[in-house]
Amino acid sequence: MQKHNFSAGPCVLPKEVLQKASESVLNFNNDNLSLLEISHRSKPFVDVMENARALALELLGLEGKGYKALFLQGGASMQFLMVAQNLLEKRAAYLNTGTWANNAVKEARIFDDILEVASSKDANYNYIPKGYDIPEDHDYFHCTSNNTIFGTQMKTFPNSPIPMVCDMSSDIFSRSLDFSQFDLIYAGAQKNMGPAGTTLVVVKEDILGKVSRKIPSMLDYKVHIGKGSMFNTPPVFPIYVSMLTMQWLKDLGGIAAIEKENEKKARLIYSEIDLNPLFKGFAAKEDRSDMNATFSLINDDLKETFETMVQEAGINGLNGHRSVGGYRASMYNALTLDSVKVLVEVMSELEHKA
Amino acid sequence: MQKHNFSAGPCVLPKEVLQKASESVLNFNNDNLSLLEISHRSKPFVDVMENARALALELLGLEGKGYKALFLQGGASMQFLMVAQNLLEKRAAYLNTGTWANNAVKEARIFDDILEVASSKDANYNYIPKGYDIPEDHDYFHCTSNNTIFGTQMKTFPNSPIPMVCDMSSDIFSRSLDFSQFDLIYAGAQKNMGPAGTTLVVVKEDILGKVSRKIPSMLDYKVHIGKGSMFNTPPVFPIYVSMLTMQWLKDLGGIAAIEKENEKKARLIYSEIDLNPLFKGFAAKEDRSDMNATFSLINDDLKETFETMVQEAGINGLNGHRSVGGYRASMYNALTLDSVKVLVEVMSELEHKA
Ligand SMILES: Cc1ncc(COP(=O)(O)O)c(C=O)c1O
Ligand SMILES: Cc1ncc(COP(=O)(O)O)c(C=O)c1O
Ligand SMILES: [Mg+2]
Ligand SMILES: [Mg+2]
Ligand SMILES: [Mg+2]
Ligand SMILES: [Mg+2]
Repeated sequence: MQKHNFSAGPCVLPKEVLQKASESVLNFNNDNLSLLEISHRSKPFVDVMENARALALELLGLEGKGYKALFLQGGASMQFLMVAQNLLEKRAAYLNTGTWANNAVKEARIFDDILEVASSKDANYNYIPKGYDIPEDHDYFHCTSNNTIFGTQMKTFPNSPIPMVCDMSSDIFSRSLDFSQFDLIYAGAQKNMGPAGTTLVVVKEDILGKVSRKIPSMLDYKVHIGKGSMFNTPPVFPIYVSMLTMQWLKDLGGIAAIEKENEKKARLIYSEIDLNPLFKGFAAKEDRSDMNATFSLINDDLKETFETMVQEAGINGLNGHRSVGGYRASMYNALTLDSVKVLVEVMSELEHKA
Repeated sequence: MQKHNFSAGPCVLPKEVLQKASESVLNFNNDNLSLLEISHRSKPFVDVMENARALALELLGLEGKGYKALFLQGGASMQFLMVAQNLLEKRAAYLNTGTWANNAVKEARIFDDILEVASSKDANYNYIPKGYDIPEDHDYFHCTSNNTIFGTQMKTFPNSPIPMVCDMSSDIFSRSLDFSQFDLIYAGAQKNMGPAGTTLVVVKEDILGKVSRKIPSMLDYKVHIGKGSMFNTPPVFPIYVSMLTMQWLKDLGGIAAIEKENEKKARLIYSEIDLNPLFKGFAAKEDRSDMNATFSLINDDLKETFETMVQEAGINGLNGHRSVGGYRASMYNALTLDSVKVLVEVMSELEHKA
């Protein structure tokens, strides 16, 4: 049975990418060796790494603007630490829009006290705070572009007087933005980019090298840049599959093309949530995420019926995170409009049944 | 053409493991979803993680002895840092047997001065120092069981009066040892365990929690243990393939069975190196590694002929590391005796030609 995979991450990847990835495990580059067996210093893999780094900058429109792309290990959670370790000298400013933003603050606090410029904790993070000030005398401002758990998304970004760092784990490559307004972007691969096991970091080189602490090699962006993202053995397979996914996106027409699809999918699910009297949305309308739609049944008696119908339709990964409850439809780049149509049909069928 | 893959890592993996890994990328668990697409919190993947952790302890004979197994990101190089961060309070003692041992010292020096108990740097690390003292008032003793680059291997381990930490990246699961003499073992997956992108850490829990510094979450063994090695999204595919490889080894008869094969392979290559007048070995005989045989041509004029013959035989990855030069035959668990026979035949053919 065909699956419709609404999982929040790891999540759906393009079919042709999976096909090619599967083949590469048996025979890479037609060389009778598996991608998993070749040296990371061999030309075929160095080419993969260089291609992946170039594609990331190209898709974001950041070529020739002083940025470097790295594919590191450790997940986005390791970036919570590395950002502070590399950039925090005196004090940093963070916007608190949910669980992940909070975790980023928590890791940075190991080095110093952190200023929370604003928070939406008062309403269980169902909106994005606005109208806050970012103090000029801080080292950097950190925000989370898309809050995977709560289904909110920053539609605009502040005009920051200090370097702006953004966790884009759950909406990288999904919408057009002026990415040059950010000085450091990071994203775990396992939503819009590839399998779990690598993290993209795009950093403007001139913000580095300004802290006085000694940075361990593995946590030092400058060390990784100096070694072309190969300071030590990189996670070969996750990087290769990320490269394939970025190539797939480029061939589709890049971010501008996928953004249109993502908008269609979001419009479809949110209009069903709003018009269907059985469901209600969680996030404030103006801050709704195009990636993760959070919603719930108004009447919990329908829970079992709905979930059975969902399962029978081949829909996977729809459960909400425990911090919010209800449902979460994650609609990353590789999820088709058809999958959203299947979900919306189930929701509307439930209305007619009930 | 069939390849004989002597690469130092990433390296050869069992054919049936690659076959199953390739299938899982398209359809995992017969569920019409890719392994790369499912949530790491879903039961099928949690089972993989738990199975992998259990297999590691079982293969090492460390079940029920107070050890925990973790599959982390960052490579062995990240362990150079994490070991010191979690265990170094006052001073630690390191044995310097080569490049990787040195790099481990370098990262630990960020926290404090390090005592080098002995070093074989005087002879470009072609032997393992013996007869050194390990001071009782240090926090731990760190050694490298197999020196991938130089082709030396510790055949015995000191009776350490303090916790013993061992980098087993290049000989884990290859030979029978009393693994309970170690308090912490780590190994990057990409030699004897699986693809690049995860690192096995096996740690005796009672050595943890004794340092006074605040440890960042991602670098804290206790945090990872508390979360069952799922503090954040784990590298799903590298862990799955590592689990398959450990299962393959268990089915073969475990470490005791593979050790016999590894000894046969090592005996074959070293006797050719010794008996063939065209070649000489690099490492001191008593310290020769069963995993990585380092050797060179006595007469460099034969270089081109030899390398052409090597290539025509389908042999891959035989170049030595630049620190040693010459050749390095890495003969990890999944390399067959037949592949070593092919190499030895080429070497002996060269003798008859010359
Ligand atoms: C926005 C955001 N940041 C950070 C993370 C943590 O990522 P990782 O598990 O790779 O550490 C997640 C995970 O879902 C996320 O959605
Ligand atoms: C013995 C040893 N330790 C550490 C490393 C570094 O491993 P990684 O590249 O995973 O950081 C290597 C790599 O070959 C190694 O052979
Ligand atoms: Mg969140
Ligand atoms: Mg409604
Ligand atoms: Mg070495
Ligand atoms: Mg000889």
